Amino acid sequence: MPVTNDKLIIAGREFDSRLMVGTGKYADFQQMVRAIEVSGAQIITVAVRRVNISDRSKESLLDHIDLKKYTLLPNTAGCYTAEDAIRTCRLAREAGLSDFVKLEVLGDEKTLFPNNEELLKAAKVLIAEGFTVLPYTSDDPIICKKLEDMGCAAVMPLGAPIGSGLGIRNPYNIQIILETVKVPVIVDAGVGTASDAAIAMELGCDGVLMNTAIAGAQDPVAMAEAMNLAVRAGRLAYRAGRIPRKLYATASSPLAGLIA
Amino acid sequence: MPVTNDKLIIAGREFDSRLMVGTGKYADFQQMVRAIEVSGAQIITVAVRRVNISDRSKESLLDHIDLKKYTLLPNTAGCYTAEDAIRTCRLAREAGLSDFVKLEVLGDEKTLFPNNEELLKAAKVLIAEGFTVLPYTSDDPIICKKLEDMGCAAVMPLGAPIGSGLGIRNPYNIQIILETVKVPVIVDAGVGTASDAAIAMELGCDGVLMNTAIAGAQDPVAMAEAMNLAVRAGRLAYRAGRIPRKLYATASSPLAGLIA
Amino acid sequence: MPVTNDKLIIAGREFDSRLMVGTGKYADFQQMVRAIEVSGAQIITVAVRRVNISDRSKESLLDHIDLKKYTLLPNTAGCYTAEDAIRTCRLAREAGLSDFVKLEVLGDEKTLFPNNEELLKAAKVLIAEGFTVLPYTSDDPIICKKLEDMGCAAVMPLGAPIGSGLGIRNPYNIQIILETVKVPVIVDAGVGTASDAAIAMELGCDGVLMNTAIAGAQDPVAMAEAMNLAVRAGRLAYRAGRIPRKLYATASSPLAGLIA
Amino acid sequence: MPVTNDKLIIAGREFDSRLMVGTGKYADFQQMVRAIEVSGAQIITVAVRRVNISDRSKESLLDHIDLKKYTLLPNTAGCYTAEDAIRTCRLAREAGLSDFVKLEVLGDEKTLFPNNEELLKAAKVLIAEGFTVLPYTSDDPIICKKLEDMGCAAVMPLGAPIGSGLGIRNPYNIQIILETVKVPVIVDAGVGTASDAAIAMELGCDGVLMNTAIAGAQDPVAMAEAMNLAVRAGRLAYRAGRIPRKLYATASSPLAGLIA
Repeated sequence: MPVTNDKLIIAGREFDSRLMVGTGKYADFQQMVRAIEVSGAQIITVAVRRVNISDRSKESLLDHIDLKKYTLLPNTAGCYTAEDAIRTCRLAREAGLSDFVKLEVLGDEKTLFPNNEELLKAAKVLIAEGFTVLPYTSDDPIICKKLEDMGCAAVMPLGAPIGSGLGIRNPYNIQIILETVKVPVIVDAGVGTASDAAIAMELGCDGVLMNTAIAGAQDPVAMAEAMNLAVRAGRLAYRAGRIPRKLYATASSPLAGLIA
Repeated sequence: MPVTNDKLIIAGREFDSRLMVGTGKYADFQQMVRAIEVSGAQIITVAVRRVNISDRSKESLLDHIDLKKYTLLPNTAGCYTAEDAIRTCRLAREAGLSDFVKLEVLGDEKTLFPNNEELLKAAKVLIAEGFTVLPYTSDDPIICKKLEDMGCAAVMPLGAPIGSGLGIRNPYNIQIILETVKVPVIVDAGVGTASDAAIAMELGCDGVLMNTAIAGAQDPVAMAEAMNLAVRAGRLAYRAGRIPRKLYATASSPLAGLIA
Repeated sequence: MPVTNDKLIIAGREFDSRLMVGTGKYADFQQMVRAIEVSGAQIITVAVRRVNISDRSKESLLDHIDLKKYTLLPNTAGCYTAEDAIRTCRLAREAGLSDFVKLEVLGDEKTLFPNNEELLKAAKVLIAEGFTVLPYTSDDPIICKKLEDMGCAAVMPLGAPIGSGLGIRNPYNIQIILETVKVPVIVDAGVGTASDAAIAMELGCDGVLMNTAIAGAQDPVAMAEAMNLAVRAGRLAYRAGRIPRKLYATASSPLAGLIA
Repeated sequence: MPVTNDKLIIAGREFDSRLMVGTGKYADFQQMVRAIEVSGAQIITVAVRRVNISDRSKESLLDHIDLKKYTLLPNTAGCYTAEDAIRTCRLAREAGLSDFVKLEVLGDEKTLFPNNEELLKAAKVLIAEGFTVLPYTSDDPIICKKLEDMGCAAVMPLGAPIGSGLGIRNPYNIQIILETVKVPVIVDAGVGTASDAAIAMELGCDGVLMNTAIAGAQDPVAMAEAMNLAVRAGRLAYRAGRIPRKLYATASSPLAGLIA
């Protein structure tokens, strides 16, 4: 593949940026707008529950996002059952937000890990109803394969718990997921700093989604720019073909995993 | 410190780029020139032994580098004794290359680790002779402190063996070096891919020097661009102030090193 | 808790050893018997499919195991559906093997990751039928909590894929599982060498189950002894209360996760 | 090599135990004596400065150590120059302690990293005076080779800073040292818990020396036993020949260092 003309394609839509960003936890809308802008992201995820859908006379997050410029990806943050997540997606569609959805069904309030059983149920219903489903899930190749087989447009395994900033805790599982599915693999959750995003891309992931890492940084706008650069750096490095790891340059063979 | 106006200052000279690159191992000069250009580097290191100093009628590496645009940093690659390294620096100065030197005194041909005893001897002599010395050394805070005390303009600890591509193998030592010296700390050797460079910068290092990671990549020009972006990403992330690492977002305290 | 009198208790049964071992992949039964003996294990897992249940006139694995000395833990290795795993457990009980079962429902033949949806279904049925169920599962706290709530006697998250020898790839998830469930947590799969087993115990796990790491070693009997020692070492170290990790001894605070 | 008859040989002396322990930081002599006993160590290091050599009428550390049972290894803890370390060793010999010495020359009080330049000077003098020198040094293969060439009986690279409990921070360097020298390689400093000691042995090191990890644990005697078991576990695992690391068991080749 040539290094140029490197588009991310999800469900037939093309994107130049491989970074997707959230809209929560910013000090104010101005900061959010500025951070999103310098991030270079084209896909913006919003929690349907946080958007003021019913009463459009009040100020809403959506008033601050240029919908001609960005692709909105409504998400079901805060849903703990399939039923709840399905209802939330339907609401988003009825309100005209999008039928492109980031499906989250959470397992508990403490860790925000996904409840994959409920996720599978919700994904099945939503796909049947014509939604384009991007599911947030575990770094579990079996679940990812089921989600792909069911018709999800991408899989979004976590790198680490939401908001933890721990980075890609198990690159081995991400590697296996990349060997297992053909749909885009987008790391969702866990990124803490720029190198974490670069690592996700160097593994061969198709994209990265983050919110807290940017919005929670001391300077969110500077961190947004760092992430913009890091995702591009990681993708380029992946495509450029890195040198092999060796114990030292004159070693006769690449490092064969003798040291973890 | 403001995120803007973030210059690297070495011995009073200001640089916008924090990436320094080598000139060896490229397929040809054209590839080298193009890679250096997209890397955004302003400091270019050349092995004095590889420059054709004596017979300027033949084609030389230097014919391909725009000396108005780049700061040349002659290095003593291939020297195994203080005496040899000192002689090489003097030759570089006599040939008009520069008195800004990257001082390498190697310990063996297999690993290319530095011989720090000889390095200290050579640095002492060269500083007395007015050279601006940037020494390649181990990730050893005691040696780095000695080099600073002696008058070196920066310290250049290795991240991993030259050409190994192993990245920053001991970020703890780099962290201690950053606490110990006030001169710029530039990671020299070991970088394999973009995230390695970003990690060096996120630790708080002042710059990164690399050669094999770019020249040895399958597509050196693409990798040079990746490194350009990665160094900027890592620096910005460092200055933006990352979120703390936690076991999960609702954990009451940052991760206290319970897990290595 | 006193360091002495440290029993592993599963479903009311007490064990002195926290190492559980498998019976597959040995060169011959003699090697297997000797390795099990020096491992100090008291719980031995056997694949029901590999035991010759129907024709007891032929030589069987079970002829070599002293059932007065060891607790047999039949497992459902090779089952890919809940139905299949349930049938296998019933067969084991009918043949008089045990109603203590290690429940495996695999997701694919390549990675041998668990199929957690099918696992939950099988566990529910088997618990209702009076089996004591120890399920092999992912390092997923949500699944582990469901298995506990359902009545499983322990949870057995994988450290890494079966037979991979990669060790505990995500100690963070194991840590969260330990915070989440009250039943014993036994790391099952992934151990490659002695330190991996020690690490599992140091995290606070209640036990470790392994097969390939011992049977596949160049000297399985020596490795069995190593694992015996390592599990005891790790458990003792956990209970002895290790020193905090610091960047250096005189640092004022434990390492706060600044470096991953 | 057979797994049995596995002696550690230093300067012609044979030892069954590969764990060496210190004598500092215990609550009292009784605790120290008990911890040393259960550690199984045969070589005990004592700081010459802490032994009351001049006035033998007062209680001394040495009154509590059975010199028929243990080999005393006086050390030069607290020395910051070659001169000081040499004088300390001479004092130890004059007092009849031993001419087997653990040579430490520290670089600073904060990190307790070695000052390798001074170390080399001291080692040269002491070897010429007939001492058997075991030097505490960096994980630097070039320094280790110089120490071996000079006549040191072993090399003792640090795993991490003294008292840090960080474990083997750079196993790659330890691996290179093991390839580089023929004298015993004993990891000295950095061990925090049992698995750290096991890892050192699994890399192929000949022994491990520790003090804080045991004396600073909440239950030093239990930790001493853990370390006894861990060192034996790691050594046995090393000799037993571990299974290769693979991404999953059916992968066609061992993991080739694609993931750090």
